[in-house]
Amino acid sequence: MAEPSSRPRHIVLTSHPSPHGAQTQPIRWGSLDPLQRGPVVGTLTNPAHRNVIGTHAGAYALYRALAVASGSLQPDHRADLTNTAPVVSIGPYASWGDADRIVSLDPWGAIVGEVFAPFYAQGYDIRPTIAITRAHINMPELQEAVSKGRLQVDGRILKDNGDLVVTKAAIEPVWYLPGIAKRLQVSESLLRRTLFEQTGGMFPELVTRSDLSVFLPPIGGQTVYIVGQVAAITDPALPLAVRVHDECNGSDVFGSDICTCRPYLVHGIEECIRTAQAGGAGVIVYLRKEGRALGEVTKFLVYNARKRQEGGDRADAYFARTECVAGVQDMRFQELMPDVLHWLGITRIDRLISMSDLKYRAITSSGIEVIQRVPIPEDLIPADARVEIEAKKAAGYYTEGEVPDAERLAQTQGRAWVE
Amino acid sequence: MAEPSSRPRHIVLTSHPSPHGAQTQPIRWGSLDPLQRGPVVGTLTNPAHRNVIGTHAGAYALYRALAVASGSLQPDHRADLTNTAPVVSIGPYASWGDADRIVSLDPWGAIVGEVFAPFYAQGYDIRPTIAITRAHINMPELQEAVSKGRLQVDGRILKDNGDLVVTKAAIEPVWYLPGIAKRLQVSESLLRRTLFEQTGGMFPELVTRSDLSVFLPPIGGQTVYIVGQVAAITDPALPLAVRVHDECNGSDVFGSDICTCRPYLVHGIEECIRTAQAGGAGVIVYLRKEGRALGEVTKFLVYNARKRQEGGDRADAYFARTECVAGVQDMRFQELMPDVLHWLGITRIDRLISMSDLKYRAITSSGIEVIQRVPIPEDLIPADARVEIEAKKAAGYYTEGEVPDAERLAQTQGRAWVE
Repeated sequence: MAEPSSRPRHIVLTSHPSPHGAQTQPIRWGSLDPLQRGPVVGTLTNPAHRNVIGTHAGAYALYRALAVASGSLQPDHRADLTNTAPVVSIGPYASWGDADRIVSLDPWGAIVGEVFAPFYAQGYDIRPTIAITRAHINMPELQEAVSKGRLQVDGRILKDNGDLVVTKAAIEPVWYLPGIAKRLQVSESLLRRTLFEQTGGMFPELVTRSDLSVFLPPIGGQTVYIVGQVAAITDPALPLAVRVHDECNGSDVFGSDICTCRPYLVHGIEECIRTAQAGGAGVIVYLRKEGRALGEVTKFLVYNARKRQEGGDRADAYFARTECVAGVQDMRFQELMPDVLHWLGITRIDRLISMSDLKYRAITSSGIEVIQRVPIPEDLIPADARVEIEAKKAAGYYTEGEVPDAERLAQTQGRAWVE
Repeated sequence: MAEPSSRPRHIVLTSHPSPHGAQTQPIRWGSLDPLQRGPVVGTLTNPAHRNVIGTHAGAYALYRALAVASGSLQPDHRADLTNTAPVVSIGPYASWGDADRIVSLDPWGAIVGEVFAPFYAQGYDIRPTIAITRAHINMPELQEAVSKGRLQVDGRILKDNGDLVVTKAAIEPVWYLPGIAKRLQVSESLLRRTLFEQTGGMFPELVTRSDLSVFLPPIGGQTVYIVGQVAAITDPALPLAVRVHDECNGSDVFGSDICTCRPYLVHGIEECIRTAQAGGAGVIVYLRKEGRALGEVTKFLVYNARKRQEGGDRADAYFARTECVAGVQDMRFQELMPDVLHWLGITRIDRLISMSDLKYRAITSSGIEVIQRVPIPEDLIPADARVEIEAKKAAGYYTEGEVPDAERLAQTQGRAWVE
């Protein structure tokens, strides 16, 4: 079979600190001077420069490996980053200099080309872990909101063809392991050991390389959509609306009626537009945590169990069915979610477009003030999603209405299923 | 700090075949007798039973590890799979017995509870890697198609409130490494070595455990949406429409106007509905390969480079900008994509809703006949997405119109960017 030319090389199964005492550039997490902090070097073009466990692009590193294996990508390819710099300036903020405030992304990740210029000059291959661009987006629901008078076209933020002008940022996960451990209230050694063991042995370096404190995990990242001026996000005189939205492909893309995900997302965007038009800004954070970070296979298994259980799909058994299949109700670890808000320099949210008590607690515990929580309007809840929303209200979700009691929960039923 | 109680244990950094000659249940990939084939055992509840590299849930295994580390999930939790079985029967088909035809998913993954009952009786913890459920979905564009007369409500497939009745399947990746290597036309040893090295050392077992031929990679999987009767998919007398759609979060969810992703997806669903209403079936496959499997950070970097290059965003430089940043134009490896179609038993597609020459070649090379290719209707292409579609036509995408020449490519420009 055709193989790319490759010289025979020794396979290094587990990396160890250099026996000759040579030091890679250390990462001093939480330093507000980027040259003191040091770049995150996760590329493989020069192994001697690497100072992290894992590599870039999250789970897409696997596809990169396929490209190299098949000979279509040269393993020593270095990205030509001409013209790729952020379209707007974000930070640095005081939070970037706090090792406890941001632990799951690299606050300097978007501006590596600017702040790490001396390292590039020395031949370091530093990849951005954040990219900031702008876009016009157009969602049918927003056009409908205009035609129904809920939104006003202003020609600048919301155009008359329904286009919404946004700034958006894609963010790859960068985990500072001591900080992640502290956030989860476990020891770093237990965190490292469990990450290694419970993934089936991914990255022995988690256990063997305690000198490396940063891990690039092969998981999905997050995307930030900003409506209005970026500067308004941190201006204490201007209002800010925020929705932190966890991916739900079945609803977000396909409009499944068993949950409120897309309707609530769209409502969040509407709130962002109104806030931006009032001179403030709106922020949507889209986190790749499908099915409460349990994945879609587990999600669909749970749907089947809910619809088929004795008595049918009902709010009083909503969480129990997930727990039976997955062992937990939720794996999203909202404890890590506020990092992106601190990257944006947010210290106060005027309108938080979320009913989740877990998200609210995570945000406020991280030191961000929340003035008002905005529930999803009743008329946006699909009929079959009543089971979810009532179960969540009973479990502590924010509501301006009544918290359902046991009787109401038992009576809240989803669509019956004809097998 | 609080830690879940755990006895001190030896950390096994790299697993090796048992020194005592004890054999785990081997996987004989491609056997049409499931008991001969053997179950895929990727759980960690009993390490002695494991017969794969990696673990379940794709990239979400990392979140599972966090849940165990934080003490919210017991590591020995076994899924209670009561009532979770598929809502419809799919297969087995002859393709399931062909080790070359399906190499990136486990065709038995949905019905493990049924076909591996003797193994469950022996205490094996076998997890489904496919889940099949049903749903009602509702997309604003479909309601518009009804109001404009492009779609007819039939009350069974498409309801009068715009609800579309679908069967859907979530599929986790299961890679048979010898088959993946063959598909990519490289040796298995080179594939294993490169997967290990180019991920920064993920899973040394890829190199050390040549006795394990199945790998559960930590990447996103795919979702299948079926419109109409599942039995129609394999009935040679009935028509079949198929769209294989690669994730594009910016368009699929948010409606970014720089590409044709969501409009083409919606057009594919419309075609599926019409085909199902004519007695056939429609299949949408949604593959988690964001930004041509380069990830969203790379995608946004490329957007910036396209918009800022000399002469602005134009079709004749469309692919060059991606290649400068990523080293390749595309990492989606369409070679693996037809597996899901063979899992569904598809041997003929009447209408393939795709213009991609790579997808077309992958599908037809895998032995599936394609009668007709359906391009995206001109009026569904957003103005700013002209750059993409013209560049793709010039590069070999299917078109019923003219293939653009160099002059037209140079003249096809996207929206100018005011910095």
